Amino acid sequence: MLLPKGFQTASVAAGIKPSGNADLTIVVSDTPCAWAFAGTRSAAAAACVLRNRERHAALTPVRALVVNAGNANAATGRQGEADNAALAELAARTYGLETGEILTASTGVIGHLLPMERVSSGFGRLKTAPSRDAGLFARAIMTTDTRPKLAERTLSGGQRIVGSAKGSGMIHPDMATMFAFVFSDAAIAQDTLRAAFPGIVARTFNAVTVDGDTSTNDMAAAFVNGAAGAADPAEFLAALEEVMRELARMIAADGEGATKLLTVRVQGAASEEQALRAARTVAGSALLKSAVYGNDPNWGRVIAALGRADADMNLEGLEVSVQGVPVFAGRPLPYDTPAVSQLMRAEEVVFEIDLKAGSARGEAWGCDLTEGYVRINAEYTT
Amino acid sequence: MLLPKGFQTASVAAGIKPSGNADLTIVVSDTPCAWAFAGTRSAAAAACVLRNRERHAALTPVRALVVNAGNANAATGRQGEADNAALAELAARTYGLETGEILTASTGVIGHLLPMERVSSGFGRLKTAPSRDAGLFARAIMTTDTRPKLAERTLSGGQRIVGSAKGSGMIHPDMATMFAFVFSDAAIAQDTLRAAFPGIVARTFNAVTVDGDTSTNDMAAAFVNGAAGAADPAEFLAALEEVMRELARMIAADGEGATKLLTVRVQGAASEEQALRAARTVAGSALLKSAVYGNDPNWGRVIAALGRADADMNLEGLEVSVQGVPVFAGRPLPYDTPAVSQLMRAEEVVFEIDLKAGSARGEAWGCDLTEGYVRINAEYTT
Repeated sequence: MLLPKGFQTASVAAGIKPSGNADLTIVVSDTPCAWAFAGTRSAAAAACVLRNRERHAALTPVRALVVNAGNANAATGRQGEADNAALAELAARTYGLETGEILTASTGVIGHLLPMERVSSGFGRLKTAPSRDAGLFARAIMTTDTRPKLAERTLSGGQRIVGSAKGSGMIHPDMATMFAFVFSDAAIAQDTLRAAFPGIVARTFNAVTVDGDTSTNDMAAAFVNGAAGAADPAEFLAALEEVMRELARMIAADGEGATKLLTVRVQGAASEEQALRAARTVAGSALLKSAVYGNDPNWGRVIAALGRADADMNLEGLEVSVQGVPVFAGRPLPYDTPAVSQLMRAEEVVFEIDLKAGSARGEAWGCDLTEGYVRINAEYTT
Repeated sequence: MLLPKGFQTASVAAGIKPSGNADLTIVVSDTPCAWAFAGTRSAAAAACVLRNRERHAALTPVRALVVNAGNANAATGRQGEADNAALAELAARTYGLETGEILTASTGVIGHLLPMERVSSGFGRLKTAPSRDAGLFARAIMTTDTRPKLAERTLSGGQRIVGSAKGSGMIHPDMATMFAFVFSDAAIAQDTLRAAFPGIVARTFNAVTVDGDTSTNDMAAAFVNGAAGAADPAEFLAALEEVMRELARMIAADGEGATKLLTVRVQGAASEEQALRAARTVAGSALLKSAVYGNDPNWGRVIAALGRADADMNLEGLEVSVQGVPVFAGRPLPYDTPAVSQLMRAEEVVFEIDLKAGSARGEAWGCDLTEGYVRINAEYTT
C-alpha cells in the first residue's frame, strides 16, 4: 500500500529491538500538514506524548513523524525528556526541518533509557532509502504485534486516506499502548479535523480493550497535506472514521495471545457515552474473554460486567444475544448450548445487548484471553 | 476450628454442585445476633444481596445465615427472587425461626435457576447433624477455591472471633465474587460494629483483586451473639480487622490459577482512599500479574498502572521497590535483574511504592496471572 501523495517514509534497524528488525522510522510530508492528535490520559505519560501535546496546543503545522519501537522511553526521568527532544532534533537535522515541525513516538519496554548512540547512527542511514511503501512504516512500528496493520480509503475526488496502527498489549479505552497514525493527501481545514477527531477516537481506538491496562505512550494522530486537493469535509470525516474503525478492529483481533475478535454491540443505552462504556466493560471482562476463548456461551458474565459498567439498564427487559442467538431477556432463555458453542468457533464472536434504557448505541472490540497472553507477558523483559 | 460459643453449623450435599460435594450450609446462633453487612456495588446484584441489604436497613437482629454454593441465583429474574425468599423460608421452617431472622447467600454460576427440589430435599437432611466445626461451613461455601479459608483470634477476655471466606474468581475491590463471614461470641453494640465495618471492609476485602471483575453476589457480614460476654470495643474491632485481613490475603493467594500472592504497599499518598486505589490498581494490572508469574521485575508496569490510578503522585521523586530492592527513584535504578528475579520466586511478591504526594498508606493484595486462570475460566460452564 502506497502512502498518499506528498508523503515519503524510511525505516532502519537501529538495534533498539533485540530481534534486529526495523525499529526506527519516519514519515515526512513534502509540505506542512494540518493535523490532530490524541494522547494517553495516563498520569505517567511518556515524554513523546507530553511533547506532542505541547505541539498540538501550539497549532502550528507539522512535517514529519518519527517513531521508534522496542523502547518506550517512559519512566526515564529528565534524561528521557532530553532523549526525546534529541529524536526530534536528529530528524530535523536529517531532513532539513525545524524541530517544532516534528512529532515523536516511542513504544516498547518501559523504564529503560533509549540507546541514543544507536538511534543517532540509525538516523545517519535513514535518508538513504526514501520510499512510499506504507508497509515499511507499519512493520517498523510493531512490538508484540503479529502482523502489520494498514487500512485505506479513496475519496470520490481521488484523495486517499492511509492509516497504520500498532498494538497489542496494554490496550484499553483511554488510549493505551497503541499507535494509530493516519495520513491523507486531501486538503481539510485543521479546525474541521480537530473538531471531529476526539469523537472519532472515542468511537474507534478508545473502544478497543485488550487487557485493561493503559499505556504511558499511546497516541493517535491524523496528518493531511492537501497534495491531492480539497475534499468534501463530511465525506472525508466519514472515510477517516472507517479507516480508524478498521484499524481498531485489527488491533483488537491481534491482541496479545488472541485467537479471535470479540465484538460487543450495545443499543438501548441512555447516552452514547454509556453505550460505549457498557460495551467496553463487557469486552474487557477477563472472565468473559476466557469464556470466549473456550467457546463457552457463559452470558452470565455479560450481566456481571454490565453490573459494574455504571450505565443505566432495565434488568427486567435487558436482552443479550450471542452470535445472533437470544440467551437472556429479563430472564435466562432456553438455548442449545452445544450449537451456540459451535457458533462461537469463529474468527469473530459478537455479543449484542439491549439495555432497554434509551436509544443510544455503541460498539467495542476486544479479544479472547488465552494462555498465550500470559506466556507473552510473563516473558517480556527477562 | 470450632465456631464461637452459641453458634452451630450443618452442611449437606444437596446436588447443586456437580461434584457432589457439600453445597448447602447454615450457621445458626442460639440467640439473636447484632450484625453488619456489606454487599456488592454491582447494578446487577443478585436477589440474596438485595434481600440482605433490606434486612440490614431494618436494623433487626438475625439468627442464621444460609449459604448455597454451585449456583449464584443471579440474573434469574422474578423466579430467582422467589427462590431466594424460599431459601429463607425453608431455613426458618427447619430451625423454627422467623424468615426475617435469616440471611441468604448464593455463589456459583450466573443465570441458572436454583434447583429448588434438591435444595428443599437438602434442608430436610440439614438439621440431623449439628456441629461446631467451622471447617464444615468453610468447605461447603467453596466454588473454584482450592482450599477452605478460616481465620481466628481470641480476645483477652476469652471471647473468640472466627471468620470464613471464599473466592476466588471474579474478585475485585467492590465486593466481588467473594463471601466473608465472621462470627463472634463477644457482646458488641450493633451501632459500634456497623460504624466500623465499612472502613474495615475497605482496608481488607475491598483491597483484594484477582481479575478486575465484580460479582453480582459478593458480600461480607459479621455476626456477634454475646454468648461469651462484653469485650472492649477497640480490642474487638482491631481483632476483627486482623481476621478479615488474614482472610483477604488467603482469598488473593488462592485466586484462580494463582501460584503466588502479590502484595502492593503504597505510602506517601495524599489520602487513604488514593493509597488504596493506587495499590489496588497496581495489584490488578494484568500485565504486572503476568510479569510476577514470570518472576520478571518489570517495574515499568507498576508505573504504567499508577498512571491510570487517579492518585496524586510526584513522578520525579516516586520510589518503587520489588522484594525490598529499590528499582526506581524518579528514574530507573541499576539493579541485578537475575538476583531480583530469583527473589521473586517466593510465595509472596511485595511491591512497595512511595508516591511522594502525602503521608497516607494503603495495601492491596492480588495474585499472579497464569495459564491456569485462563484454563479454569475457559471451561467453567461447558
